[in-house]
Amino acid sequence: MSDRSRLLAVARGDAEPDLVVEGARVFSAFTREWLDGDVAVADGRIAGIGRYDGGERVDASGQFLVPGFIDAHVHLESAKLLPSEFARVVVPRGTTGVVCDPHEIANVLGVEGAHWLLDATEGLPLRVYVMAPSCVPASALESPRGPLGLDDMRAILRHERAIGVAEVMDFPSVIAGDPDVLAKVALHPHVDGHAPGVLGRGLDAYAATGIASDHESVTWEEALEKRRRGIWVLIREASNARNLSALLELVRRHGPDWCAFCTDDREPDELVREGHIDQMCRQAVSEGIAPEDALLMATLHPARCHGLLDLGAIAPGYRADLIVLDDLDGFRASTVIAGGRIAARDGAALPFDAPAVPGAVRDTVRIAPLPVLPFALGPAVPRVRVVEIVPGQLVTVAAEEEPSVRDGAIVADPARDLATLAVVERHHATGRIGAGLVRGFGLRRGAFASTVAHDAHNIVVVGVDDASMAACVTRLAELGGGIAVADGGAVRGELALPVAGLLSEAPAESVVERLDALVAMLEEQGVGIGAPFMTLSFLALSVIPDLKLTDRGLVDVVGARIVPLAV
Amino acid sequence: MSDRSRLLAVARGDAEPDLVVEGARVFSAFTREWLDGDVAVADGRIAGIGRYDGGERVDASGQFLVPGFIDAHVHLESAKLLPSEFARVVVPRGTTGVVCDPHEIANVLGVEGAHWLLDATEGLPLRVYVMAPSCVPASALESPRGPLGLDDMRAILRHERAIGVAEVMDFPSVIAGDPDVLAKVALHPHVDGHAPGVLGRGLDAYAATGIASDHESVTWEEALEKRRRGIWVLIREASNARNLSALLELVRRHGPDWCAFCTDDREPDELVREGHIDQMCRQAVSEGIAPEDALLMATLHPARCHGLLDLGAIAPGYRADLIVLDDLDGFRASTVIAGGRIAARDGAALPFDAPAVPGAVRDTVRIAPLPVLPFALGPAVPRVRVVEIVPGQLVTVAAEEEPSVRDGAIVADPARDLATLAVVERHHATGRIGAGLVRGFGLRRGAFASTVAHDAHNIVVVGVDDASMAACVTRLAELGGGIAVADGGAVRGELALPVAGLLSEAPAESVVERLDALVAMLEEQGVGIGAPFMTLSFLALSVIPDLKLTDRGLVDVVGARIVPLAV
Repeated sequence: MSDRSRLLAVARGDAEPDLVVEGARVFSAFTREWLDGDVAVADGRIAGIGRYDGGERVDASGQFLVPGFIDAHVHLESAKLLPSEFARVVVPRGTTGVVCDPHEIANVLGVEGAHWLLDATEGLPLRVYVMAPSCVPASALESPRGPLGLDDMRAILRHERAIGVAEVMDFPSVIAGDPDVLAKVALHPHVDGHAPGVLGRGLDAYAATGIASDHESVTWEEALEKRRRGIWVLIREASNARNLSALLELVRRHGPDWCAFCTDDREPDELVREGHIDQMCRQAVSEGIAPEDALLMATLHPARCHGLLDLGAIAPGYRADLIVLDDLDGFRASTVIAGGRIAARDGAALPFDAPAVPGAVRDTVRIAPLPVLPFALGPAVPRVRVVEIVPGQLVTVAAEEEPSVRDGAIVADPARDLATLAVVERHHATGRIGAGLVRGFGLRRGAFASTVAHDAHNIVVVGVDDASMAACVTRLAELGGGIAVADGGAVRGELALPVAGLLSEAPAESVVERLDALVAMLEEQGVGIGAPFMTLSFLALSVIPDLKLTDRGLVDVVGARIVPLAV
Repeated sequence: MSDRSRLLAVARGDAEPDLVVEGARVFSAFTREWLDGDVAVADGRIAGIGRYDGGERVDASGQFLVPGFIDAHVHLESAKLLPSEFARVVVPRGTTGVVCDPHEIANVLGVEGAHWLLDATEGLPLRVYVMAPSCVPASALESPRGPLGLDDMRAILRHERAIGVAEVMDFPSVIAGDPDVLAKVALHPHVDGHAPGVLGRGLDAYAATGIASDHESVTWEEALEKRRRGIWVLIREASNARNLSALLELVRRHGPDWCAFCTDDREPDELVREGHIDQMCRQAVSEGIAPEDALLMATLHPARCHGLLDLGAIAPGYRADLIVLDDLDGFRASTVIAGGRIAARDGAALPFDAPAVPGAVRDTVRIAPLPVLPFALGPAVPRVRVVEIVPGQLVTVAAEEEPSVRDGAIVADPARDLATLAVVERHHATGRIGAGLVRGFGLRRGAFASTVAHDAHNIVVVGVDDASMAACVTRLAELGGGIAVADGGAVRGELALPVAGLLSEAPAESVVERLDALVAMLEEQGVGIGAPFMTLSFLALSVIPDLKLTDRGLVDVVGARIVPLAV
């Protein structure tokens, strides 16, 4: 505990505060009341609510003062922005804390990736807590640069901002009692979970390990089953997993306790245009949730879920992370205070010094030269497995179809919305390529590809024309990572993601502009679903049901095994 | 984390449970629901709720299964029983966990007293967690055997059942920012508080230290002020501090969140006759609180307040501490399960092995020979301070009176209910004696005395006849501690408390019988208030307002200073 003698003096009225927010209605998270009073801040913490002279004054008359928002679970890398740029986008929205699982960058760079993220979040106007990634690789059926072992996790957990073990995604192994997975669970008393669709006895076993949260529920009934077992329900509204609306019914029926908001993965355009946790508050209130309940799920509950005992409330000794809101339906932040300092006004972050990005995180894409016919699907068979996209969800359906055939070989068929999906190993240039079929993009011409490909972040590419697919993959290797769209065998547009193949170094606005242009190209080429790049990026994740594709082949997630294209 | 592979196997249905509670309605602490299902137990933990074959069967059809009760704050020593005997009394009442502050025995025996209590609670069917005493002495104005320093506290905190820093009672020093006290607060992230009547800026300063609980509120408005500041409201129903009824209004107005039950100090007769946390549930429900809210305050909330993340709920992975209740108004426990084993049936504890009591905790009373006129109050003055008892509360009123005078000296006067109160130093035989006047006992003859005298546990004696007072004190020294009643200069009755002068080694029933007899004697001598020995024992506590007495003299608690008898 740091020296709080000056904070106490300010609380007593014996010393002048650093900053005072005047005249607001102040949210009391512990009683759901709105209190009238000035809020005094000293040394980055709240001294009290009352009347205070001196200090920098923030006039909030007629406004609402609430705790800074906390994202209970996010992969920062999904924003495709440097962490400092992520902060510049979300802090003006009222987010002052995030609990992140750096497993994207850890798949690409190992333990050094997690350390890089901790370094890159030092001194930001955003508190970034880290959970030690527990599932690198996500499963044995995909290929990151290398596995993250117990010693790597221990090294991460020595950092003061590392607060637990990140989502344990390999739920079949957990339930089966696999000693290696249970050893990771046992590394820390605080462990996040990931148990999509797990119910009944499987869920009992999962919960019995002590894993204390889950953000994968897609129905309120599933979330209720988890909550009954003492598992925090992290209500997720990700770009491609919009669960908020469905899960609010749990809050209506059983109140907001043991529920907290999280975003998991959000595209930069959504962050810039729709917002972050503020967007979840807005939507929840628009769907009939009391603003006080929404605020609890956005502030105190994520803090308590993660054992962050001095965050998420406006009370003496708490960190002075505060939002002045204009109203309780739009949740517009007119002033954001982070660590006792004004960090944003009227939607714009104040300048701050961002940590430098070292060179070691660049040039991470290494592929073998592509063979002739790199994405061939093999000779005709009667029936094939097809990965069928569920719009707005991370889960897919394992469909079965009669394939389209040309010259005796299975081929993509845009007329039937069947595209070729391939994953090219890109960490060790092994030349390993998995290939299959996907339905749901609506792609009619060309191809698109990304080095953002959860969780191993190999190159994932989808196309109805092999030459365009190859052009995308080759270009991404040249760029050191990114996103590319091709048609007629030539790249039409690209976004470079030079940091680990995951992050741009450009400002958020230009990343969004570039992504918009790429999405527009895809629309020209027939793609009709939202967030197509995020959808593509999750088709390679071997731990979310039902059928996925990795560099090792098609993955039957529930069965935890590689399956052939032919049924 | 212990190996949970077998627990997981039972949860999955792949192995037989140790024990199954069948047919009960099961309380879900996380949703306030009642679920139907069997509860399976393995290796001391809950495996799940469902249908299970095998194992020892506990038929609970038509009954209610709830988590074991947890006392959020108790000084075990106040029961005057060995810890094993305390367990034998409270476990059949449904209590399976207590968080205790061993500061009574630490005042008598220093750090060894805390270690003794940890040893003496090993292997009981009751989880006993310890907070490291922060206030030995309670203040500089009283005299324990010796101070408990930072290193002593660190030594206690190394024990696996030590979970934080115990109630920081010296609130004036906390608020003033005294570095020595703040150093104790900083020893552990989890710190209990004690802030009677502290409000406004003082309370802001107290809370700003991070102290996270308080059990001293006597009105719901005071409790609300604390809860607004993020301080857990530990609702107390002690033998001599009955705050439950007044504080339930906070629960009615703002719900049960951030509230938990505690008993602080209970006389053995109350434990045996009225009960423990079960009594608080019973009273709360009789006063209109929903049984589910009472249960939360008796189970999950005390657990969460203290960071005990696998206690207080019936969910997979939680400790199998369970109560089969007949109903939700009487809260009668028909079966109590502790750590997965049946610990009590129909109000009686099953036999268990109690740890042996070493000899080093006996023979702790050392006094100097009493002088002539040991309790003289001095020559007549116009006005004197009088400690005025507030029935049922620990606080006293600092009254002022014209004294009764005989032969030019201030004297006790039973006709005016003014008795002599004295505290005799008993750890180092210094011969130091403090003396004053007390009103409120109604004592008309003789005297009574105790070596239970919070917190320093010197000998406290009250009387209207100096010879009887001296007889009591002398006898307690011979006994090595206890309680005595005298009249006409001779001891009429006594209860030996040979362990540290605080605890009997006799069974609870015989201790209660003996105390009943002593209380009956006091009634014969005019005493008209309830719990006279507990009332007496708190008159020496220098940190509860307004006026108290120690071996050093009369203590103005708010002013934190010794004051003379004369105004």
